[in-house]
Amino acid sequence: MSDAGLERFLAFSNQLADAAGAAIRPHFRQPIGVDAKADASPVTIADRAAETSMRERIEAAFPQHGIIGEEFGRVRDDAEYLWVLDPIDGTKSFISGVPLFGTLIALLHRGRPLLGIIDQPILSERWIGADGRKTTLNGRAVATRICAGLGEATLFCSSPDMFQGRAAEKFETLRRAAKLTRWSADCYAYALCASGCIDVVAEGSMKPYDYAALIPVVQGAGGVITDWSGRALSLTSDGTVLAAGDARVHAAACKLLSA
Amino acid sequence: MSDAGLERFLAFSNQLADAAGAAIRPHFRQPIGVDAKADASPVTIADRAAETSMRERIEAAFPQHGIIGEEFGRVRDDAEYLWVLDPIDGTKSFISGVPLFGTLIALLHRGRPLLGIIDQPILSERWIGADGRKTTLNGRAVATRICAGLGEATLFCSSPDMFQGRAAEKFETLRRAAKLTRWSADCYAYALCASGCIDVVAEGSMKPYDYAALIPVVQGAGGVITDWSGRALSLTSDGTVLAAGDARVHAAACKLLSA
Repeated sequence: MSDAGLERFLAFSNQLADAAGAAIRPHFRQPIGVDAKADASPVTIADRAAETSMRERIEAAFPQHGIIGEEFGRVRDDAEYLWVLDPIDGTKSFISGVPLFGTLIALLHRGRPLLGIIDQPILSERWIGADGRKTTLNGRAVATRICAGLGEATLFCSSPDMFQGRAAEKFETLRRAAKLTRWSADCYAYALCASGCIDVVAEGSMKPYDYAALIPVVQGAGGVITDWSGRALSLTSDGTVLAAGDARVHAAACKLLSA
Repeated sequence: MSDAGLERFLAFSNQLADAAGAAIRPHFRQPIGVDAKADASPVTIADRAAETSMRERIEAAFPQHGIIGEEFGRVRDDAEYLWVLDPIDGTKSFISGVPLFGTLIALLHRGRPLLGIIDQPILSERWIGADGRKTTLNGRAVATRICAGLGEATLFCSSPDMFQGRAAEKFETLRRAAKLTRWSADCYAYALCASGCIDVVAEGSMKPYDYAALIPVVQGAGGVITDWSGRALSLTSDGTVLAAGDARVHAAACKLLSA
C-alpha cells in the first residue's frame, strides 16, 4: 500500500478512536446498566454507542469496506478491506472504574493487518501500529524491551479463569517459569509490552476483534505475536494468543505452550 | 481531636503525598533496578526514595511522632502519634508500567486511625479519609454504592496466589459467590470501593502499612473494613482484610470467610 493510502487510513482510524472515546468517557465511573451477553460477558450502553459511532463513520466513508465488531457482528466480511472493532476491550475493567480497558481498531487488507490502534480514552493514551512503521504512543515511537529468558520475564494474562484442562496446565507451566505474573489488564497488557514495560502476554479464548489490532502494535514495536503454536494470527486462528517483546522469550514460551 | 488539629495533620499529609509522588514519577515506565526483598517481593529506588522523603519531613516536623514504613522499619512505634507509610503499595504494578499502585499514608493516635491517604501520583488521584469526615477524591466527596448481596458484587483481590490452604478454600467460596472478580489492583481496589465503582475487596498476608491508610478512606465513604472475622483492624491484626461498600455484602462475605 502507498504511503499516502496508509496515511489516509491512519487519519481516519484516529477519527474512529476519537469518536469511540467520546462515546465512552461520559459513562466511566457513572452508574450504568450492565447486560450479560450469550457468553455471560458484560456489555453496556457505552460498548454499543462506541461501536455504533465507529460503524456509522465507516459506512459513510468506505461503504464498500467490510466490518467485524464485537457487539454488532459482521457485514461484507469478504471485502478487500475489513475493519475489525472492539469498542471496549476489557468491559469488566470499564464497569469497575479501572482505566485499563481499550478501544481496539484494526484494518485488514485481504486478511493482512495494515494498522492497529489500542486507545485508552480515560488516560488519553493511544498506541498505533502500522505496516512497515514503528509503533507509537501518542505520536512517540515505542519499542519492546530486551529480556533474555522467561526467568526474567513479567507475564500478563487477563484472568486465571481463562483456561481449562490442558490449556490451564500449559499456562501454569508458563506462569511458574516467569518471574512475575499480573492479571486483569486485557488489551492494555499488549500496549505495555509494546512500550517495553512488560515482557510476555499469553491468553486464550480470544476472538479476532480481541487480537487483530494488537498485531501491528506489537510487531511495530519489535515484538512477536502469534498463536500458542507460533503460527501467524488470522481471522480463523484458534483463539490462543502469545505476544512477547523479545523473540527469545516468545520462543521459550511457545515451547511450553505448544508442548 | 480538634478540627484545627486534624486540619494541620491533613495539610501535612498532603505534603507527604506530594513529596512521595515527586520521588516516584520520574521512575515510572523508565528502566529501573528491581531488588528482591527477604519475602521475595520487589523493591526499587523509587520505593526507597519516596519513603525517605516522607520520613525526613516527619522527623523535621514532628520529631516526637513514631513511624512505621514498609522499606525502613519502625522508629518510636510506642509514640502517641504514629505514621504508617507504604511508599508504593503495588510495586509489581509500578514496575510493570501500570498506574494502579499507590502511596499509602496513615496517622494513628493511640492506635486509632485519624486519617488515611491513597495517592496515585501518575493519574493525580488522591483519596483522603479522616476521622468524622466524608472521604474525598481530589477534594470531592465520594461514597460507596449500594449492593444488596454477593450475587451482585464485584470482588477485587491483588492475586489468586495470595492464599494457601484453608484461606484459599474460603476465598474460592467467596469468589464463586461474587458476580465478577478482578485482580492485581492492590490499594487501588479499596479506592474504587470508596468511590462506589466496586463492592468488595478480600485479601490476606497484609501488613499494617498495607491497610492502615485504607481504614479511614473506606469508612469515610460509608463502607466497612475489618479482618475476615469482622474484627476491627489494628497493628496486631492477623493480616486478613475484608472491605465492602455495603454492610450487607460485608456481613455475607464475613460469614463465608470466617466459616
